[in-house]
Amino acid sequence: MAVYTDVAAEDLARFLAGYDVGELLSYKGIAEGVENSNFLVHTSRGRFILTLYERRVAEGDLPFFLRLMEHLASRGITCPQPVKTTAAKTLGRLAGRPAAMVTFLDGMWIRRPSAAHCAALGEALARLHLAGADFPMRRENALSVAGWRVLYDRCREHAHEVERNIEALLAAELDALERDWPRGLPQGVIHADLFPDNVFFLGDKLSGLIDFYFACTDTLAYDVAICLNAWCFENDHSYNVTKGRALLASYTKTRPLTADEWDKLPLLARGASVRFLLTRLVDWLDVPPGALVRPKDPREYARKLRFHQKVKSARDYGAPEP
Amino acid sequence: MAVYTDVAAEDLARFLAGYDVGELLSYKGIAEGVENSNFLVHTSRGRFILTLYERRVAEGDLPFFLRLMEHLASRGITCPQPVKTTAAKTLGRLAGRPAAMVTFLDGMWIRRPSAAHCAALGEALARLHLAGADFPMRRENALSVAGWRVLYDRCREHAHEVERNIEALLAAELDALERDWPRGLPQGVIHADLFPDNVFFLGDKLSGLIDFYFACTDTLAYDVAICLNAWCFENDHSYNVTKGRALLASYTKTRPLTADEWDKLPLLARGASVRFLLTRLVDWLDVPPGALVRPKDPREYARKLRFHQKVKSARDYGAPEP
Repeated sequence: MAVYTDVAAEDLARFLAGYDVGELLSYKGIAEGVENSNFLVHTSRGRFILTLYERRVAEGDLPFFLRLMEHLASRGITCPQPVKTTAAKTLGRLAGRPAAMVTFLDGMWIRRPSAAHCAALGEALARLHLAGADFPMRRENALSVAGWRVLYDRCREHAHEVERNIEALLAAELDALERDWPRGLPQGVIHADLFPDNVFFLGDKLSGLIDFYFACTDTLAYDVAICLNAWCFENDHSYNVTKGRALLASYTKTRPLTADEWDKLPLLARGASVRFLLTRLVDWLDVPPGALVRPKDPREYARKLRFHQKVKSARDYGAPEP
Repeated sequence: MAVYTDVAAEDLARFLAGYDVGELLSYKGIAEGVENSNFLVHTSRGRFILTLYERRVAEGDLPFFLRLMEHLASRGITCPQPVKTTAAKTLGRLAGRPAAMVTFLDGMWIRRPSAAHCAALGEALARLHLAGADFPMRRENALSVAGWRVLYDRCREHAHEVERNIEALLAAELDALERDWPRGLPQGVIHADLFPDNVFFLGDKLSGLIDFYFACTDTLAYDVAICLNAWCFENDHSYNVTKGRALLASYTKTRPLTADEWDKLPLLARGASVRFLLTRLVDWLDVPPGALVRPKDPREYARKLRFHQKVKSARDYGAPEP
């Protein structure tokens, strides 16, 4: 929930003059998105989302994200489309930030996803993975196993302020993950942040995916593991196997998992919970005074990690019997 | 910049079913408005602003605000219009809060108003005062002189943390204002919060006024004094008499000020700066941990107050020679 950078109307009008989008009619900062500043822009030609990219997004990565959205749309995935300037550029600068405009997607994100929503998500995720198969650009996942110890070192000293023994939990888990992390599973474009607030529905139908700013080239099944973490736990942190079953059945109908992928799913799920636990810890311990963002509670992911540590096989997530 | 209360899509769809606005297509929390939670709602019939009223707005005052917006529109003032349910109601409940939907106004607020913007504002303010003349409802101004000492008592002990001697400045000023506050000036409906972010422009034309949630029955010239404070100071806190002259000339062309009103303008301007200094101090000293709102800097209004204290007559604000 954030707008870090405000934009003056005159500056925006000047920026928009480079596009073939008509006259500026209104714009409002949106209280969504933790990483960047987002504005809903109305012009005489339609509605757009304007994003000013803030600290965490490396400018060099932006072409990957913008081209990926174009590629996915050309393969039938509904996602925002970068709007091109009259000079055919998708990336500009506004208020001292890299800035891009994308088309507006109708739809709402679901605050309380049901098993039916999880099924729809599973299918969309598999279609995303298939659609990304021939995307020619690569981007390493900076937030995968090789990046976790760096985050851990940034938060270990104060982690106990968030929860007792959380640093011991993480230390042991990191050792295990660094040793056992699966390297030979099918790779491709993953979204890497497909939480409910990045998935739009119209009625019961999934209507689009947004926010590709963590997308990268990585293990496809890791994306499934991220979604199990993000979609299949209840507010009381219990795992809902009905939702997990719906997500997995629906995903594998479109893109079957290999025996190896099933086998490694619990490990990938542990990794996914470590990834979000670490970034949330760092954010939690790093809130500057006067911040406009309420960091998300890291403890949610400590509880999920402990759940995954007890999982014996993918069947505990709702995988079909072999 | 705030969304205090989130709304689930299902709950919003249920709420909208009471209106004749078609199907819900999207909604986004807006990072604007410090007092309430605001959402930009798109339906198959158009665009609306949904407001959930938070702590500071008394539910009993809502009919005043909503009827005022209807009244002003019927007198030619462009402002949001409450949307009626099929049962002809403008006020409902959503997510445990009083809630209302109003029409969406195109336009942008001006981050760096020019003298021309100040002139447009002056005319709109005068037209608002004339249009409100026959509005039949009354609402006392809880944030006028009778309410200031209560606020002062809430912040005096810690006010020095914000700026040295600010409590002495306020104590002396409050004594003077309580003694000298003008009571016999023309009264009527005032907006009472017509800052630049509540005034929309399309190009150079003023296109509408929003946010009537401080509107009340009070001294009309006090509203002018609020606008001098809000529109005619530069970022370095210096008073720009060109802007003041533009605002006042334009206001008085539509609604001339009486000799008494001119005479009391400096006192009213001091009162206006005290009002915003006090609420900002209270907010500044009262930020709860994890707050999503960055309070506005109170010191801006201490500097404005000191400026007004040195003013000899309305001519220092740009009033015409008599």
